[in-house]
Amino acid sequence: MANSKFEYVRNFEQTDTLLANTWIVVRIDGRAFTKMCAKYGFEKPNDRRALDLMNAAAKAVVSDLPEITIAYGVSDEYSFVFHKACTLFERRASKLVSTVVSTFTANYVHQWSTYFPDTPLTSPLPTFDGRAVCYPSIQNLRDYMSWRQVDCHINNLYNTTFWSLIQLGGMDAKEADKTLAGTLSADKNEILFSRFHINYNNEPEIFKKGSVIFRDYELVDPMSHNTAQVVEAQAEPIQQSKTQNENDKKRRAKARILVEHLDIIKDDFWDRRPWILSNKPGKIPKET
Amino acid sequence: MANSKFEYVRNFEQTDTLLANTWIVVRIDGRAFTKMCAKYGFEKPNDRRALDLMNAAAKAVVSDLPEITIAYGVSDEYSFVFHKACTLFERRASKLVSTVVSTFTANYVHQWSTYFPDTPLTSPLPTFDGRAVCYPSIQNLRDYMSWRQVDCHINNLYNTTFWSLIQLGGMDAKEADKTLAGTLSADKNEILFSRFHINYNNEPEIFKKGSVIFRDYELVDPMSHNTAQVVEAQAEPIQQSKTQNENDKKRRAKARILVEHLDIIKDDFWDRRPWILSNKPGKIPKET
Amino acid sequence: MANSKFEYVRNFEQTDTLLANTWIVVRIDGRAFTKMCAKYGFEKPNDRRALDLMNAAAKAVVSDLPEITIAYGVSDEYSFVFHKACTLFERRASKLVSTVVSTFTANYVHQWSTYFPDTPLTSPLPTFDGRAVCYPSIQNLRDYMSWRQVDCHINNLYNTTFWSLIQLGGMDAKEADKTLAGTLSADKNEILFSRFHINYNNEPEIFKKGSVIFRDYELVDPMSHNTAQVVEAQAEPIQQSKTQNENDKKRRAKARILVEHLDIIKDDFWDRRPWILSNKPGKIPKET
Amino acid sequence: MANSKFEYVRNFEQTDTLLANTWIVVRIDGRAFTKMCAKYGFEKPNDRRALDLMNAAAKAVVSDLPEITIAYGVSDEYSFVFHKACTLFERRASKLVSTVVSTFTANYVHQWSTYFPDTPLTSPLPTFDGRAVCYPSIQNLRDYMSWRQVDCHINNLYNTTFWSLIQLGGMDAKEADKTLAGTLSADKNEILFSRFHINYNNEPEIFKKGSVIFRDYELVDPMSHNTAQVVEAQAEPIQQSKTQNENDKKRRAKARILVEHLDIIKDDFWDRRPWILSNKPGKIPKET
Repeated sequence: MANSKFEYVRNFEQTDTLLANTWIVVRIDGRAFTKMCAKYGFEKPNDRRALDLMNAAAKAVVSDLPEITIAYGVSDEYSFVFHKACTLFERRASKLVSTVVSTFTANYVHQWSTYFPDTPLTSPLPTFDGRAVCYPSIQNLRDYMSWRQVDCHINNLYNTTFWSLIQLGGMDAKEADKTLAGTLSADKNEILFSRFHINYNNEPEIFKKGSVIFRDYELVDPMSHNTAQVVEAQAEPIQQSKTQNENDKKRRAKARILVEHLDIIKDDFWDRRPWILSNKPGKIPKET
Repeated sequence: MANSKFEYVRNFEQTDTLLANTWIVVRIDGRAFTKMCAKYGFEKPNDRRALDLMNAAAKAVVSDLPEITIAYGVSDEYSFVFHKACTLFERRASKLVSTVVSTFTANYVHQWSTYFPDTPLTSPLPTFDGRAVCYPSIQNLRDYMSWRQVDCHINNLYNTTFWSLIQLGGMDAKEADKTLAGTLSADKNEILFSRFHINYNNEPEIFKKGSVIFRDYELVDPMSHNTAQVVEAQAEPIQQSKTQNENDKKRRAKARILVEHLDIIKDDFWDRRPWILSNKPGKIPKET
Repeated sequence: MANSKFEYVRNFEQTDTLLANTWIVVRIDGRAFTKMCAKYGFEKPNDRRALDLMNAAAKAVVSDLPEITIAYGVSDEYSFVFHKACTLFERRASKLVSTVVSTFTANYVHQWSTYFPDTPLTSPLPTFDGRAVCYPSIQNLRDYMSWRQVDCHINNLYNTTFWSLIQLGGMDAKEADKTLAGTLSADKNEILFSRFHINYNNEPEIFKKGSVIFRDYELVDPMSHNTAQVVEAQAEPIQQSKTQNENDKKRRAKARILVEHLDIIKDDFWDRRPWILSNKPGKIPKET
Repeated sequence: MANSKFEYVRNFEQTDTLLANTWIVVRIDGRAFTKMCAKYGFEKPNDRRALDLMNAAAKAVVSDLPEITIAYGVSDEYSFVFHKACTLFERRASKLVSTVVSTFTANYVHQWSTYFPDTPLTSPLPTFDGRAVCYPSIQNLRDYMSWRQVDCHINNLYNTTFWSLIQLGGMDAKEADKTLAGTLSADKNEILFSRFHINYNNEPEIFKKGSVIFRDYELVDPMSHNTAQVVEAQAEPIQQSKTQNENDKKRRAKARILVEHLDIIKDDFWDRRPWILSNKPGKIPKET
């Protein structure tokens, strides 16, 4: 029995290939996480267990998909960056997005009990949606990453002050909102310090900076090598021998995957880790 | 501190809205499930626990997303059909696909231990990818569904015979392959019956037909009402009052979600359940 | 000398295939035609020569591309409808749009001197842009056509009244605008009749209805055959023999292409010309 | 009379915005030009009048659309490059392609009689189709341009030899084809020289190199300034004052548009004309 009579329906599939030689960012976001936070009693303004779980799930994604060169997470969102030379799934948007979302969700649900041992998951379960965006130049990509990290800072400063006014200052949400209306960063720092003796600078880095995930190789002295422009040139796909590709693959597999809370807006982070933009694995650091 | 300097990166997001007034099928597929089957010792040719887990996860998706009018699953794949009038997520492909994939994955992983109590999940976890396809007419949609069910039949007949030759006939995979090369359906039925006294017709319906998920209302006498053409007309979006929409929503929420193993190729299934194509909830059956 | 080193650039081409089994409307619009009208002294509110030239160019498009089943034009715009079974250029949007626009423009420029013998074209020449839109159902397509014809009526009634106030009533544009602000159709009819003894109903059909282009076969008695629903079913692509396809092609090539000014909103136009939606050529009328 | 009942059909329009910050190449191709060449008796292997007409039409396109930074043509095709910072028509593919195609076609038809005074155009008229492709980096764009120019060379060398064998050597097409099967460039050069005393190097540049169109400013000493990498950086969109934008616009409008036949594969062409990639107009040369 052949299936040919109905097989014509395959012709309705439309291609969604992402433009070649562009950086692909797959960003995922928690669905209805405001409800989730309430349901599972997440601490305010930041729940360390929830962030650690996000990071654990994201680390599993980066580990499963070596084509991801860097990832950045804050709150209930995570951005995964595929190198512009990436050809995974022929760069089909739906395959890339669904694979990232599925791997992230699987790990988030599976590792939940590690981070929330006393709070079993119940239906509806935590879920995430995702989308893919292409960035043609390194400048565009870095501006995207900076955009997310600045957003992290703005939101965290606001939330830290807002919840201090409530938790320490005894306000209700409406009063706290009103107090913060129209304030600048400096004003919020001042409120934290003068009313609650909180120095915002001393807040945990994970709250202030978010989390960045990448493979660990030996840091490079930025003076010794690349300007941004040379990196742009280096980011052009290189024709390598099969042996070189195999070597790269092995080195990449050997590299530890780090979760750090660093500034990714300034050049220093990128200059010391040229492998992130060049996609050429660095030296594996000696174990100590 | 404003975020305006970097915010231009939002302009790189491209819309992926699916054409209005078309049936949206989101199909998900297990990633690397051949490995998965081996790793967790799935029974061959069909593992009932694995299929039940697929169905449980799919049922949760249909329950969470009332815009899904019918779903059909076989093996490690599932197709979810959004009615052509659906406006969920403004019909953005990446939102629809990622939400379905994430909800499915979350439930698959979370309910795993119910179906495989003695086999804990380990990394890499089971994951699924997905894609969305649009079908303009009811004929196209039904042909898509028929395509999947015919595929189920073809594969299951092949696999049942193949594994009988191995498990009951003592062949290895190569010999079984060779035995089946060029055989027609009738030949396979004959092999099953003459060599192993297996009447393929008596195999479980879930293996032969796959699984179809839909909401349960009172069945309708096909004689009493619709020809296919009238259904096509009825499937056109209707302007309803808000009250009617609210009523529909309540009725839909009240309806039980069924997982059945029925023929969806012939007209009968559709004619008796006009609500699947019309999106107009039927009568809730009286409990007995 | 091989060209392989650079040939990789072909991989950047992205497909723009339009969804199968949907009606494709390519609409073209004059670019900067307000300036054009002034430059070449088009008569207000309608320049018959300009409309005739539009129609001549559109007729050439329909003649060159037999896959177009109907076209409708008003003012400086024209909509060309490709049947939903059309596979021309594999339904690639850019090929379809550019071919229609190029053929239209070529004929517009080439036939200009026939309609404006005393007004030579000078740079910048008249040009048109275009876009393709897909409509899944006959209802959607007919609503599109109705939308354009209603627009024609609304604009023509307005313009006829506006220019009467100026040309016959001695107003300037500002006064005419003000006089018409907030008026309904009935008010405009009244102004035309009471002030200028113009009965709008007696205005030329080409101005009131726009122009519709289609192939000419023997009209059909609507009673004798199709309801809209049957037409929807008939519009499904049919598997025909090669001979039948050849015969259709010949009959289509033989058919005269008509430019008429008819109501295309009501059913009558479509019911009497079933070939437009079925794509099955009718009988060639006997010459008289 | 409102048009609201049908206006919903606008929702079927789908966006086709091209990715920001990428070079947009709109390439047009003559439709059925093999027939055209025969019909109008174009000379073989190159018809100088036909090429001059192509160039005249392309020059009009570049003149009408100042967002085009460079164009390259060969045979019956032309590629128009919009700078990556271009925001014309919000970068909608169909608007860009159709506008280029329409402007080109209008000028081709209108200027036909200048180049073919004794050969009036008849139906079907010459037409062109088009498509848009995005290139993310300068390297990709230059490789695209090189691809076309290498193609020009390969085809012209082949055609020159092929037609010499026929026109001078008395072969028919089949014999010429056979003679050239498997030959390399050197072989063709040798055939031309030894059999027909034709030194391919002395063939007209327009045949060997194709035609490149750009705005004319004072050439720049490549030593004095840019490496390719600096150009890549310079090509990033710059925030300029309105006055500066106005000045650029004026200078661009003043610049002569040149049609030349130069090597665009080597760096020299680009290094001496930095305005092509930077989009920053150079100095207007003094008239002599």
